[in-house]
Amino acid sequence: MFSLTAALRRAAQLNPRGDALRQGARHQPWGSFPDRVARLAGGLAQLGVGPGDRVAVLALNSAYYYEFYFAVAWVGGVFVPVNTRLAGPEIVHWLTDSESKVLCVDAAFAETIEGLRSELPSLETVLTLGEVALPGSATHWEALAQANPMEDAGRSNNDLAGLFYTGGTTGRSKGVMLSQQALLVNAMQAAPILQLQPGDRCLHVAPMFHIADWCMAVGMLLMAGTNYFLPAFEPTEVMATIEREKIQRMLMVPTMINRVVHDPTLANYDLSSLEGVLYGASPMPEAVIRQALSALPHTRFYQAYGQTEAAPIITMLAPEYHTVDPASPFAGKLTSAGQAIPGVEVAILDEHDRPVPRGEVGEVCARGPNVMLGYRNLPEQTAKTLASGWLHTGDGGRLDEDGFLTIVDRVKDMIISGGENVYSAEVENVLMLHPAVDQCAVIGVPDADWGERVHAIVVLSQDGAAAPPTEADLVAHCRSHIAGFKVPRSLTFRREPLPLSGAGKILKTELRAPFWKDTDRNVS
Amino acid sequence: MFSLTAALRRAAQLNPRGDALRQGARHQPWGSFPDRVARLAGGLAQLGVGPGDRVAVLALNSAYYYEFYFAVAWVGGVFVPVNTRLAGPEIVHWLTDSESKVLCVDAAFAETIEGLRSELPSLETVLTLGEVALPGSATHWEALAQANPMEDAGRSNNDLAGLFYTGGTTGRSKGVMLSQQALLVNAMQAAPILQLQPGDRCLHVAPMFHIADWCMAVGMLLMAGTNYFLPAFEPTEVMATIEREKIQRMLMVPTMINRVVHDPTLANYDLSSLEGVLYGASPMPEAVIRQALSALPHTRFYQAYGQTEAAPIITMLAPEYHTVDPASPFAGKLTSAGQAIPGVEVAILDEHDRPVPRGEVGEVCARGPNVMLGYRNLPEQTAKTLASGWLHTGDGGRLDEDGFLTIVDRVKDMIISGGENVYSAEVENVLMLHPAVDQCAVIGVPDADWGERVHAIVVLSQDGAAAPPTEADLVAHCRSHIAGFKVPRSLTFRREPLPLSGAGKILKTELRAPFWKDTDRNVS
Repeated sequence: MFSLTAALRRAAQLNPRGDALRQGARHQPWGSFPDRVARLAGGLAQLGVGPGDRVAVLALNSAYYYEFYFAVAWVGGVFVPVNTRLAGPEIVHWLTDSESKVLCVDAAFAETIEGLRSELPSLETVLTLGEVALPGSATHWEALAQANPMEDAGRSNNDLAGLFYTGGTTGRSKGVMLSQQALLVNAMQAAPILQLQPGDRCLHVAPMFHIADWCMAVGMLLMAGTNYFLPAFEPTEVMATIEREKIQRMLMVPTMINRVVHDPTLANYDLSSLEGVLYGASPMPEAVIRQALSALPHTRFYQAYGQTEAAPIITMLAPEYHTVDPASPFAGKLTSAGQAIPGVEVAILDEHDRPVPRGEVGEVCARGPNVMLGYRNLPEQTAKTLASGWLHTGDGGRLDEDGFLTIVDRVKDMIISGGENVYSAEVENVLMLHPAVDQCAVIGVPDADWGERVHAIVVLSQDGAAAPPTEADLVAHCRSHIAGFKVPRSLTFRREPLPLSGAGKILKTELRAPFWKDTDRNVS
Repeated sequence: MFSLTAALRRAAQLNPRGDALRQGARHQPWGSFPDRVARLAGGLAQLGVGPGDRVAVLALNSAYYYEFYFAVAWVGGVFVPVNTRLAGPEIVHWLTDSESKVLCVDAAFAETIEGLRSELPSLETVLTLGEVALPGSATHWEALAQANPMEDAGRSNNDLAGLFYTGGTTGRSKGVMLSQQALLVNAMQAAPILQLQPGDRCLHVAPMFHIADWCMAVGMLLMAGTNYFLPAFEPTEVMATIEREKIQRMLMVPTMINRVVHDPTLANYDLSSLEGVLYGASPMPEAVIRQALSALPHTRFYQAYGQTEAAPIITMLAPEYHTVDPASPFAGKLTSAGQAIPGVEVAILDEHDRPVPRGEVGEVCARGPNVMLGYRNLPEQTAKTLASGWLHTGDGGRLDEDGFLTIVDRVKDMIISGGENVYSAEVENVLMLHPAVDQCAVIGVPDADWGERVHAIVVLSQDGAAAPPTEADLVAHCRSHIAGFKVPRSLTFRREPLPLSGAGKILKTELRAPFWKDTDRNVS
């Protein structure tokens, strides 16, 4: 029996005096956490939430957010974490598609929701995830905790536990249905690699609505560790918190790691407590991980590759492979996404779901007890994605002879130029090796001669130490690293940062749009 | 999807050149292991084994034994490991009750089986687990490997994968039905505590028919580690193998640890490679663990408590609690059985399945995805053991305020001697078959070698018809009916009747008390 609430009771049993949650003056010991959750669940039940009902949350990271997951599980509901970076129509789509009955919002989003309320007829109750009900909210979180504790609804195994929406980068969001089993087992599968220890202290700074951070949330549940929260990413705040709370564990996306390890005040902080950083959600440029290894010598880095549909981890690159020493027996794997985690099987399949020969590129597919139940109300897309019993990730990749997976690109992000396949990630990695390049995105744009043309958008670093490179400089740089057909045929410099999704992925759709608006093709 | 064969393919993918198995000159790399298993499965299929069919094994530890598990899983069968210490009638019961179609035996047991063959009409094929067919065997293991590789039958999740027999309180062994999920997930649950590392080298010296060693077998599967084998326990052979093969991991029962750490030649061997020893299956006398900690300073000790019905681990005592330093923050837990492992919930319940107050004694109950499907063909005992959704272990225990479990009694009246479960009732039933025995009680008493020793207290009948039997007579009587490890190692005659409770039950607590009063343990 896989059960989030059973795991909560276990943590309470074995670490009753240890804190589950710490935020400012608030702290919640594990020992009394089940009782608090049972009361919050009782409060949700009074709002009419019953087994299977969807309860959404639109909020910045907080201790309440962590409680929210367990209260919804205890009442037997299904949690729906909403991306905090959505535009109004997207929020409406998520809440409507999920038929969420109740929505929890914090101060950052109360006004947004008030403005959208008329478009959300099926939403029965808005409540503030805090101690005071904001305008538009019927009640608030602390008021729920006044209810009598209810009995655990006892959901487990293949019961639906969470609806996590994907997309943002590729069109209409799909609701990924994840079971109690999937949401628990993935952290167990990753545990031998992640080397979590009982009582670990974890800082949640990556957005909690994203499934990547969920892995750490469950990791702390299994280890009866302590969760700390920051509502937003700001490098000096992150570093100050690590130092003050002796944080041991974090999940960060590469963009965050990049900003921390390049922060000019880095040397002012004692970050030696930080034992492990899990990263993922987008490819890590080699230049960034090199800087991270040198700037944080006490920290082990774990790369995870996965997707929401796998709840989320499929492969991991263990710390020993994070070496830039060419003489190391672990050298040469740093740009890979690592190996299948225990309990997950990975295969590279062709378009007929047959394995391709080792070393060749095909679609990355996975199976294991962590795979989604399906997409909500999308039986055809579910059937296609789970065809032949395999989760089809939509990513192109290849396995080397040691089972290390290299993602060559998101299948939909591949550029086909003059009949040659160009994988954006490869070109971006090369551009990032140039010392003056801070960010870049490589996209396909329409081209009369080549069908699509490899186009780069580059943000230069602002240190002004040297004369900025010209387009010709960067093209020459690329040409020295990769085949001619992969070298950008055009390049634009951009002053403002690249647009990012909630998961820290560059929003290429947005970057492509102006180039494609006069064509009849959809490569978004 | 939990699948033993999928886990095998994963190990082959990520450690193709590493050896899965090493024994003498034989070694089997992970990379070609799935193909070998597919051929062995093809050979089993030619013998008529199909999905769900039981295939038994009666053999000493070997690399073939490890292959056996996966070949049976691949063909879709159910493996039935038979205890090598059983008497003839017990072997007949296990093979008959399981309706095993095929039996694999090695040289140590070929003759035994030939002698029993007439009592085993449903057994279709006996094959030798080796390279040459012994008399009575239709074929041998290596001949199976000549078959064409067959496609994986694809059993997974709740499909029955193994039948492990336990002793019965009524004298009759019960077949514990364990699913693919249970047999895989337990090692994953234990992994964060066990701290297994990729490529670990594990020596199997505890008998592989026992579920305790299975945990290490799966651990090596998940870590793509290397398995080594010894057919029997002999301290100097164990130490020589550890030194020669740089063994890192072992499961041992306390009796084995005791004999290794007290061996006079201990200092002759370099055992510094031995990183971790998992022990369990019987209580560890504090004197033994003290000696072990001092004799093996490089080794971490992990205690596991569980039972076959939990596949098998329920709680673990982590290495840091193996301290004899009273000033350590981890002091005082060494005589406990540790805490619930991740993904397992433990509760102490009263006779109405209600939790008792913390610190009070009740029945140790557990739930989790590792619990058995049930007992084969015993719906009533299954319903009773799994009542209210909890696995009722039959053990009495209490939880302290930090969730550490102490086993105070075994409700099922079981003695654990040298890692083997001996059910008192079974031995008592055999003693009562002797015409001169009027009353008897079989209890566990402390023993330096065995942890506990099977001790019988006998009241002879007073009819004086014949010369009263001697201790040797009664031991010989027992030996003709039950396995040697169940036969009383000591016996006292008593003139007065055994003490009875108001309900007419023999008061074993009273009989045990004089034996245990000078020990530091509480198995009252």
